[in-house]
Order: sequence, then structure tokens, then C-alpha cells
Amino acid sequence: MTEDEIVKAIAALLCHPEPVEGRHRILLGIGDDAALWQPSRSHRSVISTDMLVEGVHFRRETMSLEDAGWRAMAAALSDLAAMGARPVLATVALGVPAAKADAQIVELYRGIAAAARRFEITIAGGDLSRCDLVTISVTVVGEVSNSRAKTRAGGGPGDVLAVTGALGAARAGLELANQPRLMEGANKDAALQAFRRPTPRIAEGRFLGASANVTSMMDCSDGLSTDARRLCAASGCGAVLEAVAVADSAREVAQRLGEDPERFALAGGEDFELLVTVRARAFRYLAGRYEKRFNKKLLRVGALRKGRDLEWRGAPLDRLGWDHFAEGAPRRGG
Amino acid sequence: MTEDEIVKAIAALLCHPEPVEGRHRILLGIGDDAALWQPSRSHRSVISTDMLVEGVHFRRETMSLEDAGWRAMAAALSDLAAMGARPVLATVALGVPAAKADAQIVELYRGIAAAARRFEITIAGGDLSRCDLVTISVTVVGEVSNSRAKTRAGGGPGDVLAVTGALGAARAGLELANQPRLMEGANKDAALQAFRRPTPRIAEGRFLGASANVTSMMDCSDGLSTDARRLCAASGCGAVLEAVAVADSAREVAQRLGEDPERFALAGGEDFELLVTVRARAFRYLAGRYEKRFNKKLLRVGALRKGRDLEWRGAPLDRLGWDHFAEGAPRRGG
Repeated sequence: MTEDEIVKAIAALLCHPEPVEGRHRILLGIGDDAALWQPSRSHRSVISTDMLVEGVHFRRETMSLEDAGWRAMAAALSDLAAMGARPVLATVALGVPAAKADAQIVELYRGIAAAARRFEITIAGGDLSRCDLVTISVTVVGEVSNSRAKTRAGGGPGDVLAVTGALGAARAGLELANQPRLMEGANKDAALQAFRRPTPRIAEGRFLGASANVTSMMDCSDGLSTDARRLCAASGCGAVLEAVAVADSAREVAQRLGEDPERFALAGGEDFELLVTVRARAFRYLAGRYEKRFNKKLLRVGALRKGRDLEWRGAPLDRLGWDHFAEGAPRRGG
Repeated sequence: MTEDEIVKAIAALLCHPEPVEGRHRILLGIGDDAALWQPSRSHRSVISTDMLVEGVHFRRETMSLEDAGWRAMAAALSDLAAMGARPVLATVALGVPAAKADAQIVELYRGIAAAARRFEITIAGGDLSRCDLVTISVTVVGEVSNSRAKTRAGGGPGDVLAVTGALGAARAGLELANQPRLMEGANKDAALQAFRRPTPRIAEGRFLGASANVTSMMDCSDGLSTDARRLCAASGCGAVLEAVAVADSAREVAQRLGEDPERFALAGGEDFELLVTVRARAFRYLAGRYEKRFNKKLLRVGALRKGRDLEWRGAPLDRLGWDHFAEGAPRRGG
């Protein structure tokens, strides 16, 4: 296929049978030099970019290209969730090896299209290039009313630190993808799903963003110990982690591997749950509404306090999360 | 450096000493999960993504990382120019080898920042990853009033086909980068500049977009023969290429290599000049105003006509331009 033919095939894959809220505002999509859309008058626009690289973020032995496409979308959408924003449109830059490029592009776009349908975002454009390793760069644009946009700054001493769901499942899924015989059952399925088809917490982010009692928000993509530290730095606070919410699947995998389940959650990363700070007096009420709406708990993991330090189990918490460029950083997906 | 430290260093590099028109509308930039901005109420938003890959679009032997950073920005900005849009903000996803990652990231961002300053666009966010080859994905967002946005569709039979500048210089620069001793002088400098530091035609695009007599517009990034074919397909027309505007530098290099200078311009690509169609009766007037404003000519290269074919020198024109995935496609930058 020529490049123009591939673009046509992609456009067909992305074709949506039913119109979705806001989609009519895309005035010009794939096929021209750029896409054109009408931003909402009452909202602010939000943009974020995420990159996935073969051999760094995923390996073909443990993840299909379709899953990798989904994952790249999920990672970018998670940043919109962290701002409390509604997804509008995305662009996708794909680098793909020359051999069997067509088939690889179609497989990647199957996952991209599935995530786009699920989270109601329009793929409005992109670029294709040959590249010896598969690389996927997704840029997402969303909208949020200014009063609802949450940043990492804004938390204050005394605020409750909470997460939208238990952590460590994606890390557990990675272990299981590498050692499929480690265990069987529902926890295995849940962990592999969290690893291969993670869910960006778009609905949860919009719900929490709408509350004036949520003082800061971010996504927990590099592990709680790293991300809580970032939130604290932006908010000018320290924190005590009182409990770490560990996913059942993570607990089971960690135990089978003889590792500390809480460390799995602290260092695992890529769970795409949201980390929020909530005014202490409002936490119980908000958590109640959250549980009613989402049928799961808003999990308290600690509290902000004065100072700069992060404390866990009565001692300063090491940085356990994943850093792309720190020396000796383990390869993810590896 | 850790990832957080690298992000701080990048933010410092991108710090602008003077405020630029529209920059105050960026409400939240680098450092949070996403960037936040206030779109203009009277305008439409435009988005485009471009990807540069080491070994495909550039080689380190012939282009510094600083130039590659500029080039990636220029390629993305050129798509905004092609819509008649004003640049607002960009995000950048960089993949960089682990060895000496810090220094490479800083060098890439020097070029990115220089282009951002020159074309008045704010770098609002991005992502970093290790990758065995340098990959640069740039997403740009711009704005245009709806009546001024130009697409590839809209040209009709009889319209004049014109370009904003002579073609082939970037291709000439590539040849010179590979064979520096081929020639000396002003043409060499111009060609190397066109190859390493190309200029997206933002001002020209905004000027032409404002004219109701410009019926379609696109950027000429894959060679006139490929891009004119795309414009014709979108506009449902054929075209006759009467003359090909060849840059002086391209003419000199082609002659020294014993090649046809017009083929250089037809197939060369990456010149980032704009290709426009103009209502025939208005062309002379518009070209006069263009020359007065930009001190260079709007160059007539042919005319649209009924049918589907592209004709050059009295015969159907082969597809000479560059296609990323066509079999036997030459490696660019190579």
C-alpha cells in the first residue's frame, strides 16, 4: 500500500457508526494538512502527549500491538482524567518497521480505535513513519470548565490523600505476562487486563474535578511513591502514607514471588488510578458520593502535612517508582 | 539527572524573556499532567502532528540534533501554515538513546526552542522516553477564523496553481550535506539552510488564507508531483504543470550532478513552501499584493482543469515524490 492508501484504511477503521457527544464539532478530520475543530466557548482546552516505545514500555512477547495501541491511548487519556477534563480529539504519530508495515499499522490502530470508541474521543489526524522499533506518540485534547480544572498544586496540610482504586495490578500483570504459569484465576485475568487494557479514569476525574473540596489531582502512572512526591512538591507539602491500597491481584502475585505487596503498589506504576487530595472535613461525604456513583471506594492512603518529606511506616520513603532516565532504571515491560 | 530534573532543564530552556502575543492564554504549561489553555472565542482550533526519525528523516552525519529539533518543529508548523492558522502551542514527544541522554535532550530542545521563539508558539508539554533511535513527534495547535481556514479541497477547473517560493532547495541541501565539496558560495549556504533550518510559511499562509480568492491550500512537503496530485484528488480536478519553479541552489546542484533541475523540484520535497489555487481572474492582483508584502513572487506553476490527470511537458506526470511506505522508497536524509 502507498501512504495515501494506508491513511484511507486507517480512516475506515476509525469510522464511527454512531455520532458521539461533541463529535460534530470536529470540522475537518484525517486527510488534510491538519484537523480543525470548534472549541467550546465556556471551556478551557487541555492537551497532553504520551509516548510508548517497543522494548521500553512494552515487548511484543508479552503484549500484542493491538494492546499497545490501546495502552498508548489510555496513558494519554489518563492525563486528561487527571485534569478533570472531557476527551475531545487525539492525534497519533506511529513509527513502524518497514517489513509488514501495513499489517502492523492496522493492528495498532485496532487498539487505538477501540480505546477511542470507549472513551469517546475522535482521532483527528496523525503521522506515519518507518522506524526500526514501534513507537506510538499520542496527543490528546480535552476540555474542562476553568473552575473544575485540577492541577498537582493546591493541596494543603491536613488534606486527605486518596486514590480512585487499588494499586499494583498493572505491575502484577507484567509479572504474569512474563511468567504465565505463576497462577490462574480471576486475579490473573484482572492483572493482565490492568497491564494490557488499562482504564483511564475519565469519569472519575470529571466527578472529582467537579468538587471544590478536591484540592489537587494527578494520575498515578509512575508508582505512588514517585507520584505522591510530585504532588507534594507542587503543593508545597509533605505527606504521611498511612496505608497503601493494594489490588487483590497484586497481593497474590507479590506473595507468590515472595515480595512485599505494598512495595508493588508503591513502585509499580502504570495503574492510571488518580491520586487526589481532599479537604479533611469533606472526605467522608465525597467518598460516600463517589462510592454511590462508581460502586467502588475512594481509598484513603494518607494525609498531607507541613514540610517536604514523605513518610511511610514511620520512616522517610525512598523513591521507588520508575524514572525513565535515572541510572540503573529497570526497563519497563521487560 | 532524573526525569524531573530534565523536565526542569527543558522548562528553563524554553523560558521566553519577552511575552508574545497570545501567550498569556496558556494557563498551565510544562510540569503538570497536561497543559491548559483558553481558546479564542472567535476562532477555530487547528491541530497537526509530525514525526521525525533518525535514519529515516535525518542522519547525524549530515544534521545536528539541534537542527533536527528545528526541523521537526518546522514540519509541524508548516501544516498550520497550510491551514492559514496562527500558531498557539505545541507538545513534543522525544525518544532518545540512554547513553548521554541529558546532553542529547538539551541539544534537541535548543533547536525546538529556537523555532518556537521564531514562530511564536509555546511549548506546553511533552513526554520523554528512552529509544534506541532519536524520534521526535511534534504536535502543534493553532487558531484560524473559520472563514479563513483553507483545505486541500475547494480548487476548481481554471484556477491558477501557484507556490509561495521556488522548490528543490531542501533536496539540494541534502545532496550538499552528503557531498560538501560539490560546490561553494551563496547557493550552497541557501541550500544547506533550506535543508537544516527550513522556514514554515506561517505569515504567507495567514496572508493567503485571508483571501477569498484562494480556493485551496496545502504545504508542499513531499514534492510537487505528489502534493499537486493530492490537492487535485481533494478538489476533484486534474492539472497541467506549465512551469516548475526551481530554486537557484537546486538548479546549480542538479547541474553539477548532471540531473534535471525540474525533477529536483518535482520530487525533492521538504521545501515547506505552500501550494495554493487561486481564482484565475484574481491571480494577478493577489500576486501583486503578495510581492509587495513579502518581497518575493507568488510563483505560477500551472492550472487546474477538468478530469483527474496531472500533466507535465505534454505527458502524464509520474509520481516522483516521496512516500514513506511505497516499495523501494529511498531513505530520506540518507
